[in-house]
Amino acid sequence: MDGYLYWRPASRLTVLAHLFGIIAIVLLLVWLLHFREGMNLDSDNPFRIFNVHPFLMFFGFIFLAGEAMMAYKTVLAARNVQKVAHMFLHLVAITLGIVGLHAVFKFHDRANIRNLYSLHSWIGIGTFSLYILQWLFGFITFMIPQSSIDGRARAVPWHISGGRALLYMAICAAETGLMEKVTFLELQHGRETLLVNFLGLAILLFGITVDVSVALARYR
Amino acid sequence: MDGYLYWRPASRLTVLAHLFGIIAIVLLLVWLLHFREGMNLDSDNPFRIFNVHPFLMFFGFIFLAGEAMMAYKTVLAARNVQKVAHMFLHLVAITLGIVGLHAVFKFHDRANIRNLYSLHSWIGIGTFSLYILQWLFGFITFMIPQSSIDGRARAVPWHISGGRALLYMAICAAETGLMEKVTFLELQHGRETLLVNFLGLAILLFGITVDVSVALARYR
Ligand code: HEM
Ligand code: HEM
Repeated sequence: MDGYLYWRPASRLTVLAHLFGIIAIVLLLVWLLHFREGMNLDSDNPFRIFNVHPFLMFFGFIFLAGEAMMAYKTVLAARNVQKVAHMFLHLVAITLGIVGLHAVFKFHDRANIRNLYSLHSWIGIGTFSLYILQWLFGFITFMIPQSSIDGRARAVPWHISGGRALLYMAICAAETGLMEKVTFLELQHGRETLLVNFLGLAILLFGITVDVSVALARYR
Repeated sequence: MDGYLYWRPASRLTVLAHLFGIIAIVLLLVWLLHFREGMNLDSDNPFRIFNVHPFLMFFGFIFLAGEAMMAYKTVLAARNVQKVAHMFLHLVAITLGIVGLHAVFKFHDRANIRNLYSLHSWIGIGTFSLYILQWLFGFITFMIPQSSIDGRARAVPWHISGGRALLYMAICAAETGLMEKVTFLELQHGRETLLVNFLGLAILLFGITVDVSVALARYR
């Protein structure tokens, strides 16, 4: 544990990850603000309420969770600072994720749509619940002082594998969400579909580059 | 390299992976044969042609690719035999995947639907193309005798991280495919939706247990 981390080959991948993340945020905003109805959590138009959901689920939840996972590579500070950044970014992701979920439940309420019927909603709620559990488990194991260091060491592989699975589950939730919305809208051709397809690719590439940048660093 | 692998904690997870894979195959067959039109690559009914696609993309492509990834844990034989099993199962997955892709292009042709317009089809064709490249790269690197062993060692982390990303990309392709089909059919409630949702969960759990079983074994 050398305390500080410097520029390493694997951190070039974190640059790509930031890039795909930012491209995805821009495409998402163009989609929701230009092609769709805009965003407002407190609107008379239920679709403006709905649109808060994809925005906060990607920017608030997935993007910040990915940044949290890369914190040990990107935050150039002592290890303890990286650790707090990691924990704290995940906490912000949970908070904004809750607002994003609130938005879609409120939309269903206003538009008189049943809750939790779709595969997307099952994957989404399952991922989010397990993510909160992973956060709590990580907090108890790695933040609260332990009597034995051994328990921490044994938890690390599970924390890493579980965290990675959750990242990809969240990506799956986003892709199925996009797919559901676009199929609802029956826009099969045209510019909006292209935009959403590129958005879906950017989100997928964000997930992959976050995963690979974190995974490859473990081999050095 | 001890030549033989015995029952280890991580291989209990491979049992779970087989289980989720088989549950997914059964649910997929119940869906396609009982709720949908059945499967036939050479039928007058374009939907019977289409149905070959999800079946072969999961059973042929994803399931066999997952089994290939676990071959180093599940095939109780010398390491070289495991390696050939790994390579060969991936080759069968590619072959059946090509037939599965052929089915959906034939369906689009018969039903006069444009090709490759959806996010699902982009993720699917992207994943499949990179998967073939990964196979070729792996074959050249690990199967053909090398002058230096160093190149192989350097390729391993990329092979592993890339393979895992491809597994999750294929899972994303399957989930978006299910989401698209179910939204097309406008079956929002009722038994078929429930069945497809559980199918989607089984496919997701298959992907996660394959990944985690392979990943955790590297920490022992
Ligand atoms: C770009 C990203 C996303 C889009 C376009 C999107 C789209 C949608 C759509 C159309 C619905 C309403 C229909 C339904 O119940 O399935 C919905 C609901 C839902 N979404 Fe998303 N979603 C996205 C990301 C996410 C993520 C990342 C999560 C969680 C990790 C999530 C969790 C949920 C949940 C739990 C519901 C169900 C709410 C209810 O039944 O009232 N979504 N989403
Ligand atoms: C359970 C799994 C799957 C289901 C239910 C499913 C469903 C569908 C549907 C409804 C279409 C037609 C509409 C479109 O163009 O998007 C389609 C097309 C396509 N699927 Fe899938 N799919 C599944 C798995 C996969 C997988 C795993 C892959 C590749 C890895 C894949 C690759 C493709 C491609 C490339 C097309 C476009 C064909 C064309 O444009 O003519 N699918 N799929």
